[in-house]
Amino acid sequence: MALIVKKFGGSSVATPEKIKQVAKRVLRDKQAGDQVVVVVSAMGDTTDDLLALVEQITTAMPLREMDMLLATGEQVTIALLAAAFAELGQAAQSFTGAQAGICTNKNHTKARILSVDPTRVRDALSEGKIAVVAGFQGITAEGEITTLGRGGSDTTAVALAGAMKADVCEIFTDVKGIYSADPRIVPEARMMKEVTYSEMLEMARLGAGVMQPRAVELGERGDVVIHVRSTFCEECGTMIRRDYTMQEKEFIIRGVAHDANVAKVAVLGVPDQPGIAYKIFSRMADANIDVDMIVQSVRSSEQNIIDLVFTVSKPELSRTVALVGQLKDEMGFLGVQVDENVAKISVVGAGMLGNPGIAATMFGALAEAGINIGVISTSEISISCLIPADRVKEAANVIHKRFFAEEK
Amino acid sequence: MALIVKKFGGSSVATPEKIKQVAKRVLRDKQAGDQVVVVVSAMGDTTDDLLALVEQITTAMPLREMDMLLATGEQVTIALLAAAFAELGQAAQSFTGAQAGICTNKNHTKARILSVDPTRVRDALSEGKIAVVAGFQGITAEGEITTLGRGGSDTTAVALAGAMKADVCEIFTDVKGIYSADPRIVPEARMMKEVTYSEMLEMARLGAGVMQPRAVELGERGDVVIHVRSTFCEECGTMIRRDYTMQEKEFIIRGVAHDANVAKVAVLGVPDQPGIAYKIFSRMADANIDVDMIVQSVRSSEQNIIDLVFTVSKPELSRTVALVGQLKDEMGFLGVQVDENVAKISVVGAGMLGNPGIAATMFGALAEAGINIGVISTSEISISCLIPADRVKEAANVIHKRFFAEEK
Repeated sequence: MALIVKKFGGSSVATPEKIKQVAKRVLRDKQAGDQVVVVVSAMGDTTDDLLALVEQITTAMPLREMDMLLATGEQVTIALLAAAFAELGQAAQSFTGAQAGICTNKNHTKARILSVDPTRVRDALSEGKIAVVAGFQGITAEGEITTLGRGGSDTTAVALAGAMKADVCEIFTDVKGIYSADPRIVPEARMMKEVTYSEMLEMARLGAGVMQPRAVELGERGDVVIHVRSTFCEECGTMIRRDYTMQEKEFIIRGVAHDANVAKVAVLGVPDQPGIAYKIFSRMADANIDVDMIVQSVRSSEQNIIDLVFTVSKPELSRTVALVGQLKDEMGFLGVQVDENVAKISVVGAGMLGNPGIAATMFGALAEAGINIGVISTSEISISCLIPADRVKEAANVIHKRFFAEEK
Repeated sequence: MALIVKKFGGSSVATPEKIKQVAKRVLRDKQAGDQVVVVVSAMGDTTDDLLALVEQITTAMPLREMDMLLATGEQVTIALLAAAFAELGQAAQSFTGAQAGICTNKNHTKARILSVDPTRVRDALSEGKIAVVAGFQGITAEGEITTLGRGGSDTTAVALAGAMKADVCEIFTDVKGIYSADPRIVPEARMMKEVTYSEMLEMARLGAGVMQPRAVELGERGDVVIHVRSTFCEECGTMIRRDYTMQEKEFIIRGVAHDANVAKVAVLGVPDQPGIAYKIFSRMADANIDVDMIVQSVRSSEQNIIDLVFTVSKPELSRTVALVGQLKDEMGFLGVQVDENVAKISVVGAGMLGNPGIAATMFGALAEAGINIGVISTSEISISCLIPADRVKEAANVIHKRFFAEEK
């Protein structure tokens, strides 16, 4: 007997017909004795429809009221899905986020789960019911309805699975699983049977977007085995867990990620004094701008000046330039250069640490293709390079080929 | 400084544009220092739209899930209305039934309010906010979402007004107020400035449907002055309270009600023994059939048999006949006659008790018009007659003319 949490997103429950299919699919998969919790999102376009109503009323929706509004979306789905189970002769009970014990902080529209008290969900399961839980929503200690932001239903599913010590948390998507690269860019990308939490997090950080980092973090914390599955292909899917269990670990590199949404900023001729980097980057942090790759280079040791190069996401570029500009007189640097025609290409793999040749292999692949490398940055389990934006597809392919060549 | 609860129904909040109008109207009416609670229903066709989704999934929606589903309707409205206030510069806060402390029993889809704890609503008011409360919904002690059935938003508004000791509960409708008769039937019907709770309840019981009896009962219990107001006409409206305060009380009769949805059943030739009426009517009660007017008449004192005549609502007629038929052998009566071509016409007035001529006046008006009276029944504040269905309009008019003739 297993306890399984299954999550279906908005496109899987977009119509009453699809909701009935989800109910059938869940019952077909269910082994005798299995306990099943189903977490669902709002039906298809519901959120857009609700936002269209908002637009007619205000351009400054209070965030608390936004959550009050959006939380209705999942509440509709859970009632209908519970009814679909009942229609198939399977007892089921729906739960709002509050009823499922999803307690969050007060940060409306992107609240974080603080704790999960699944008592009522457990009670329903022990009565032989399937529990149908509204994803994406929670409740504060004060009884305020909150939502969890993008990918919130994944987060609900993983958090519940963790709190209930579920055997597995299955995230159904319309892709087959997690790939070694974006298959739209790299046709040879292969589906990974397993990845680790840290690889998954690193890939998300580097721009590959299958699962929300928050859900993966919760999975890691609660030791939840996350199975990213396809709605269409029963055999496909990727397991996300703490460590590899299969032979597949021979591939030290688990993924090639790319991110075209970056811009490079170079602050040139900065006097080389202690606290210079702090001055710039604390100002950026205060303005809530995420700085990604940072490289400090000595321009001229005689003049005692350095260049500071870093990347930000493209939408933050103009704010960044304005902010850095304000520091020019104060800090006495020479100038600022920006470059929007860049992209970041990264390789990720938890086994990288003990394998010193990875960086050389990556740089070699790029060099052979004549692709110039700008900034380089590394983490424990990744290496990233800034390259010209128009070469990103080519770069992803040559790197992927180099690392996954053994694959037949 | 007054505390005012205002309720707007689904047609008043059917579109974002109308929601904005409600917000403006509330702010225009609001005196400096007034505290305002607005109770709203689901937007226009929302409930129908949700039921259409249900129809595609099941014909036997579990009632708990029905409440889970329908409660989303008001939740959408409150978020949008709170946003509309904010857009006008007025701080506002929305409340689900649960957040407003509307505690009910577990009778899903027609739950009764057991208690109201308006602490959070009061807090919002004392912070200078307008409180926007979802009508029609509540929560059980176990945290289950319930709905209150037809007219539930009126019930929420009156219950909240009672618990908060509001100065008045304003129910906005698309009629001008409460009339002495249905204006579609009796063109001379006049709007009443005041009626009592008991008159209102009696009129509802007798088929006049402006306000749900449950809301009026709660008003009576909590001594809430209910102001039935028009969305379109600011001066119009009727006060429902315990006693009259105005000269208008000179009219002993406050309303002429009619109900065409009745059928007459005559059980003929019943042996006149103790317990006979009990046997029939307890069987009806077990089957949840409401029996209205009951008359027992002696057919023949020599044969010691009687006739029992009563009315039920038309949709219950066939069940009633089947039920009574089962008793025929057991009770040994002669036969059953039914008549669907009847209607009930009633006069209602709290001052009726001390005025013995009312019944005679009513019967006189009907006699003059040549309208035959079948069954007659009376309560403390009403007299009802069964008449031929095709004469109901005429009857309402002649009776109304007789009692309200003094009116210019």
